[in-house]
Amino acid sequence: MDGLFVAIEGPEGAGKSSLARALSTHIAAAGRQVVAVREPGGTPVAEAARAAFLDPALDAAPLAEVFLLLAARADLVEKVIRPAVARGAVVLCDRFDLSTEAYQIAGRGLDAAAIRAANRLATGGLRPDLTLVLDVPAAVGRARQAAQGKVPDRMEQANAEFHERVVAAFQVATGPGVVHLDGTKTPATVEQAAWDVVSARLAKQSGAARVQ
Amino acid sequence: MDGLFVAIEGPEGAGKSSLARALSTHIAAAGRQVVAVREPGGTPVAEAARAAFLDPALDAAPLAEVFLLLAARADLVEKVIRPAVARGAVVLCDRFDLSTEAYQIAGRGLDAAAIRAANRLATGGLRPDLTLVLDVPAAVGRARQAAQGKVPDRMEQANAEFHERVVAAFQVATGPGVVHLDGTKTPATVEQAAWDVVSARLAKQSGAARVQ
Repeated sequence: MDGLFVAIEGPEGAGKSSLARALSTHIAAAGRQVVAVREPGGTPVAEAARAAFLDPALDAAPLAEVFLLLAARADLVEKVIRPAVARGAVVLCDRFDLSTEAYQIAGRGLDAAAIRAANRLATGGLRPDLTLVLDVPAAVGRARQAAQGKVPDRMEQANAEFHERVVAAFQVATGPGVVHLDGTKTPATVEQAAWDVVSARLAKQSGAARVQ
Repeated sequence: MDGLFVAIEGPEGAGKSSLARALSTHIAAAGRQVVAVREPGGTPVAEAARAAFLDPALDAAPLAEVFLLLAARADLVEKVIRPAVARGAVVLCDRFDLSTEAYQIAGRGLDAAAIRAANRLATGGLRPDLTLVLDVPAAVGRARQAAQGKVPDRMEQANAEFHERVVAAFQVATGPGVVHLDGTKTPATVEQAAWDVVSARLAKQSGAARVQ
């Protein structure tokens, strides 16, 4: 059976982690192997890059930040995502390359063409089969995180204009497999909408497998 | 006064660190400020990337390795090299982008055009004014390191064919400011040859400054 690579994207407080947990349960209940990872992270090198990326004391320059993220992505793609998809698993990745578009290109204002090229090098051209984008206004995301008592990390501490650019970049994202979900709805509603999309895709795979 | 950016390149055991120390002394004695750094390293983020790069337990994928190096380079260029050159210092950098050509492109066999483009993004197009290449056969470099009782790091443990490709890439390097030195000569001879090149360049700067 073919694997499936699903990215879950959106700004802080959009509900990505909760959705990933809920989808994992649905997918496993449907009898498919699930591999859930988050970016940056998921391999020893990627976790080291994540720690360097998030440590305020290190104060990574914006370009250094991009390359740390791409180091993490390159390692995760090679060691986890490609092998999992190849053995037929469903990979759920909390953030992938759309986050680079939103945070580093739109947010930081870095060179879009050069960063997209570097991203293609890091991924070897691998794209998610599905990208679920949870759209929430920046203020909603921030309020949710504050309500959860979450201590803001280095990215979350950036200024409001930065986060407005990030949110706008997520909202306008289009492309093959990109599906927008209204992240302001209740978790149960978002979860159902997301599972409708993913289960339809998995059913199509099973149908194709039966036809072969 | 204009600053000067000097990279010292070559395979393991070529004598780069010793040459950097000797040149620092000469340059300071000539009344110029010296900033000596090594790659990867030289900023907190770059040292974190270096540690992740060299740790055998992390076993970075070849592409992850490149991006860790470029993260370190981007941070070093922005925070140390550009500011130092701008205030008129002489920057001595133990390895720079020629090492990426030798180890990651020639050694690892990664996509040359894509990695050169990613490197230009990391450096913002900054190139060394002078690149001093210490040429030594791979066997000579290895023997010197063994004689020093140096424990081989993750790169140095790579196989002999890898190191032959690396050495060959250094030997054929050409370009603006690239100067080859015979690293098999005595340290004093190499030091004198290198200082002849650097001091001529500094004298030209002083001459230009006087003329203005």
